[in-house]
Amino acid sequence: MSTPDTLQSIDARTGQPHGDAWPASSPAAIEAAVAAAAAAADAFAATSAADRAGLLRALAEALESQREALVPLADRESGLGPVRLNGELDRTAFQLRGFADVVERGDAHATIDDPAVPGAPPAGRPRMLRVRVPVGPVAMFSASNFPFAFSVLGGDTASALAAGNPVVVKGHPAHPELTRQTVALAQKVVAARGLPAGVFQAIEGGSIEAGVALVQAPAIAAVAFTGSFKGGTALAKVAAERPRPIPFYGELGSVNPLVALPAALEANGSALAETLAGSICLGSGQFCTSPGVIVVRKDASGDAFVAALAEKLAALAPHAMLTPGIRGAFDKGVAAWKGHPRLKALVSDTAAAGATPRPFLGEVQAADFIADHHLHEEVFGSAALVVRVDSVAETIAVLHAVGGSLTVTVWGADSDTAEHRDLVRAATQVAGRVLFTGVPTGVAVTAAQHHGGPFPASTSPFTTSVGYAALDRFLRPVALQDAPAWLTDRKGVPV
Amino acid sequence: MSTPDTLQSIDARTGQPHGDAWPASSPAAIEAAVAAAAAAADAFAATSAADRAGLLRALAEALESQREALVPLADRESGLGPVRLNGELDRTAFQLRGFADVVERGDAHATIDDPAVPGAPPAGRPRMLRVRVPVGPVAMFSASNFPFAFSVLGGDTASALAAGNPVVVKGHPAHPELTRQTVALAQKVVAARGLPAGVFQAIEGGSIEAGVALVQAPAIAAVAFTGSFKGGTALAKVAAERPRPIPFYGELGSVNPLVALPAALEANGSALAETLAGSICLGSGQFCTSPGVIVVRKDASGDAFVAALAEKLAALAPHAMLTPGIRGAFDKGVAAWKGHPRLKALVSDTAAAGATPRPFLGEVQAADFIADHHLHEEVFGSAALVVRVDSVAETIAVLHAVGGSLTVTVWGADSDTAEHRDLVRAATQVAGRVLFTGVPTGVAVTAAQHHGGPFPASTSPFTTSVGYAALDRFLRPVALQDAPAWLTDRKGVPV
Repeated sequence: MSTPDTLQSIDARTGQPHGDAWPASSPAAIEAAVAAAAAAADAFAATSAADRAGLLRALAEALESQREALVPLADRESGLGPVRLNGELDRTAFQLRGFADVVERGDAHATIDDPAVPGAPPAGRPRMLRVRVPVGPVAMFSASNFPFAFSVLGGDTASALAAGNPVVVKGHPAHPELTRQTVALAQKVVAARGLPAGVFQAIEGGSIEAGVALVQAPAIAAVAFTGSFKGGTALAKVAAERPRPIPFYGELGSVNPLVALPAALEANGSALAETLAGSICLGSGQFCTSPGVIVVRKDASGDAFVAALAEKLAALAPHAMLTPGIRGAFDKGVAAWKGHPRLKALVSDTAAAGATPRPFLGEVQAADFIADHHLHEEVFGSAALVVRVDSVAETIAVLHAVGGSLTVTVWGADSDTAEHRDLVRAATQVAGRVLFTGVPTGVAVTAAQHHGGPFPASTSPFTTSVGYAALDRFLRPVALQDAPAWLTDRKGVPV
Repeated sequence: MSTPDTLQSIDARTGQPHGDAWPASSPAAIEAAVAAAAAAADAFAATSAADRAGLLRALAEALESQREALVPLADRESGLGPVRLNGELDRTAFQLRGFADVVERGDAHATIDDPAVPGAPPAGRPRMLRVRVPVGPVAMFSASNFPFAFSVLGGDTASALAAGNPVVVKGHPAHPELTRQTVALAQKVVAARGLPAGVFQAIEGGSIEAGVALVQAPAIAAVAFTGSFKGGTALAKVAAERPRPIPFYGELGSVNPLVALPAALEANGSALAETLAGSICLGSGQFCTSPGVIVVRKDASGDAFVAALAEKLAALAPHAMLTPGIRGAFDKGVAAWKGHPRLKALVSDTAAAGATPRPFLGEVQAADFIADHHLHEEVFGSAALVVRVDSVAETIAVLHAVGGSLTVTVWGADSDTAEHRDLVRAATQVAGRVLFTGVPTGVAVTAAQHHGGPFPASTSPFTTSVGYAALDRFLRPVALQDAPAWLTDRKGVPV
């Protein structure tokens, strides 16, 4: 805990510091934040659905009311641009209100009530009422690439609060000033609603030690994390090695294979190439759902599509990346691909001034892709690999080589054939979301959403971090056996 | 993998071997079992609800039809007695049929269907259909203490099959001959129903290497485990450290605190003492739900209750324990308690002939209990600690010291008071099931059941290994975006 650690707001486009640096949260401050959250847990768990819905809606309103200040600040610190950031703020407010609606409808606290059955077991049984209780204080790690929607007041915070749990946010050091202002706004709302300050706490710091201290704090009951593979696997290990391990909900990365079947390319290849090029470059490729592996048949329609994709991509200029570190990792990843003996570079003029990279597109044969696990790893940014295949069977082998992904997109499986069934089955085994039109960038906030998937997409692939099922991560089932009337009348919420 | 490993059926009452020893499954045999399961996964996932329900019911019938052979064999290998074992076989058949009903009703494959909403995000969205897909081959580790209900055809196997996943059972070496016969029976049923043999595979062996090899097999998609803290934490680590980590559903142990409030003891103390003594000795205390910590107020009703409990317990003679190893661990645990400077032995004449122990009851003050984490650890067998408390607040501190448990029982919280609310809230934070009458031994198989709880009760406390929600462990959610009609008409089951 002796590492000196400071925070500094940096202009993402120029790389220049803005204002003075300030110190990260001390170990004592982290401990105090967790203690405040723990002290508030019982009282917050006892709040009514109306109270929680009111808090979530007030947070949405406060965020929107500060739009004029927050969006330019987010833009300066992230370089993501005002159009995207206004949309992201809208989405963040939308999902805060969406969780408010879910809580108010009572879905989150739905119970299963099995009446007593007289007689001996196994058929005979006492009355059992299954309820769900707030898990306790949640540690929430902000992501660099969504300064609103996966940061201070993002989906993890919204779902944890909706479920009745205090939240201790760890801000992301890539947007430290935005973090401070959003935290201040949230704490003002919490106070104005008469809730204990412990309901919403925040710490700041860029060191691994701060994150480890937060995950190790005994009162923390669950962790929500969106970020890098390296950071996420390290913190997951910390959570698992606590004297009392706790759930770690980590979203760590994804290559998002897109399978372009000949039927789709023959009908519409040129337009699809343009759409896909845009998706690869969207947000400078800094989306966890950015398509990184494009599976294309070795045939004429495939050749034409790949050529069109390369052409469209070469014409696009993504904006600056979030941080010099992210830019450095992108350059390193692309350099490794460029140096790969079996990989043909199709768009490779990635050299550019300052923080602004150009996209990369490579091509590799399926057998070579399958054989080299380095090629299955995400290169975060506007970079993708075209993998050429002979058949649906080889496509399926490519998907299984990837192993785990947030999404798989399948274009052209419109008819019910044995091959399409096999392909879709493989896609569902590899991904948390399977798309049949469009591109994977863009994640709807809805009840049916599932933003997760086999490792490394998620460390907890049965859960989602987007959509209303995200609540399920923070409500632990408890069976009440022969509960007294005062408790069952309250639908099992004991406090 | 070089450890020589053999299986030997042993009479639990005499400790004498029965018949010849035979070799454990070789690494090649383990690999072949997993390969068969993997090869069967797609076909089994594609079976109809009627097919799966038919399989589960046929397994129940086969088990019942072999009762005359299996129960005496189980009794010889476990010493649990024919009454208990007949009841356990009934329960095992009951839950196989219960899962058949659940599958047939379609609950397991219920979907969420969000229609498309026109317009821009965040409100605008594509159609999203949330389905759940079988996770893939499940490794299932049998428990020693339930030769039927948590073994070859127990709840883990029933729920994994109901969800559409092949199962690779690892038999428990404490009942190896029963395992062989139950496996043979199950494989005959699978073959008779025209299903691939890979749907139900089994391996046998007592070494840690065999378990590790099974968990490390790349095609295994999830692990279900009921057993010791040591074995479970070791295998959980193996599952987490695979190149592709998989869910590990482990039930590892529990002290099951029972809080006897003065109101209950004043009304009914003597009868409750008798009931509790029976629960502590039931099955020689070899239940994961055996009450191990009894929290009693320092008052006259408490003194009378403790005296009555000690008297009833001293009069009971539990039967032989399952294995010499389990007996040895019991003796070691009791010896440590006897030697504890702050612990007063109330019933301590545990010396007995051969495999048959006598119960142990100790008493300790709350502050001493809270201060020493060794006292929070389970002693598996007929052994319990009375913890004397001054107040509800101290009772809550005792529960939090225990930390994680399958159950907490609270006697005498019949009225709605602030103290009762606080106590029940603490109980729900510590346990997966909270009882208000009776004793925790005995777990109803029903939809509202939750047999799990914070670590170490479960490595995955949001899931249950008993009751119909056990299915949820083996069905992974997938969101289908803009799925074609051929797929949505099939309710999202792609094969």
